[in-house]
Amino acid sequence: MFYSTKIEIETDEREVRDITDSIKSAVSESGVEEGFCLVFSPHTTAGLTINEEERGLKEDLLEKFERLVPAMNEYRHNRGAEDNAHSHIKDVLAGPDHTIPVEGGELALGTWQSVLFIETDGPRRRTVKLSLLGE
Amino acid sequence: MFYSTKIEIETDEREVRDITDSIKSAVSESGVEEGFCLVFSPHTTAGLTINEEERGLKEDLLEKFERLVPAMNEYRHNRGAEDNAHSHIKDVLAGPDHTIPVEGGELALGTWQSVLFIETDGPRRRTVKLSLLGE
Amino acid sequence: MFYSTKIEIETDEREVRDITDSIKSAVSESGVEEGFCLVFSPHTTAGLTINEEERGLKEDLLEKFERLVPAMNEYRHNRGAEDNAHSHIKDVLAGPDHTIPVEGGELALGTWQSVLFIETDGPRRRTVKLSLLGE
Repeated sequence: MFYSTKIEIETDEREVRDITDSIKSAVSESGVEEGFCLVFSPHTTAGLTINEEERGLKEDLLEKFERLVPAMNEYRHNRGAEDNAHSHIKDVLAGPDHTIPVEGGELALGTWQSVLFIETDGPRRRTVKLSLLGE
Repeated sequence: MFYSTKIEIETDEREVRDITDSIKSAVSESGVEEGFCLVFSPHTTAGLTINEEERGLKEDLLEKFERLVPAMNEYRHNRGAEDNAHSHIKDVLAGPDHTIPVEGGELALGTWQSVLFIETDGPRRRTVKLSLLGE
Repeated sequence: MFYSTKIEIETDEREVRDITDSIKSAVSESGVEEGFCLVFSPHTTAGLTINEEERGLKEDLLEKFERLVPAMNEYRHNRGAEDNAHSHIKDVLAGPDHTIPVEGGELALGTWQSVLFIETDGPRRRTVKLSLLGE
């Protein structure tokens, strides 16, 4: 059994957005009882992670990413019209794809886990692809 | 065909633990001959990676993570009762989910690859979820 | 339906190589219309990411990885005959496995996304495993 859908979001300049509820709804609609839920960012300057939804932590994460990959460094990618090399590299560190087990018709996240969309090159309209495969 | 199980481990304060043998056993029990093995950490302060099981390298990895995301930095998440913001961010860098091909009834890891559980907020009782999907 | 194949590449010392076309060919050959495409590096010193194929950006990415995990630092792993601890850790940051949705018989990458093989310990002969699961 395969099911796919999309989440559309409008982001701020930089933010970490909890998209867990939309994913849970998609799992319910899919009818998949046991299988995998693939969450995929089709963008190159916005990624995904799975961690705790807590306001301070989300700011810590953006600040650490900025410390590791500063927007204002010299980048070859920025020699033309672009200025978002840092966002591309932050996306590589978070990763664009994460797969979560589905058990008993539900997303099998741990107690403190949420699926978090990481925008570092907004504001933009973004899409997250959800694909469910299983029984 | 879908099969799921769990690995339970008791961790030290900080460690990189090879859990490959338990995963290979689960693949054998599952009866899946061709498909995917999803290894999932349902925690937000402990992640997973796939790399070489070598004592020096495992210490290098923990040391590098500590250099990039020091435990003692200022974090907003730590203003309350928490002191583990660094562990959350290290988990983001390693990632909580990894998927490995299953071929001929076996986990298709490369010669030097092991599945490594990364604890930076222990000692704790931890669970790793294994989900197999295939034929 | 399950299908697997391999891509063989010969790498330079350090490079980011676009392997998207080979993956698209494999998806076509597989006959999978809807499902998941797992791209897996069976190596411990070369990883994968999904981002933009742009020459400057690929150099920025290698340079940033080198800044975060310098080859010439002291590493325990390098006390014997090895000198590639940095490559192992860079592989952890990029990740060895990425899963991409397959929709309508095609790899459902975003407009600017390519699948990029990251070599930091070459020149070597490398293999990338592709596994397709779906309908």
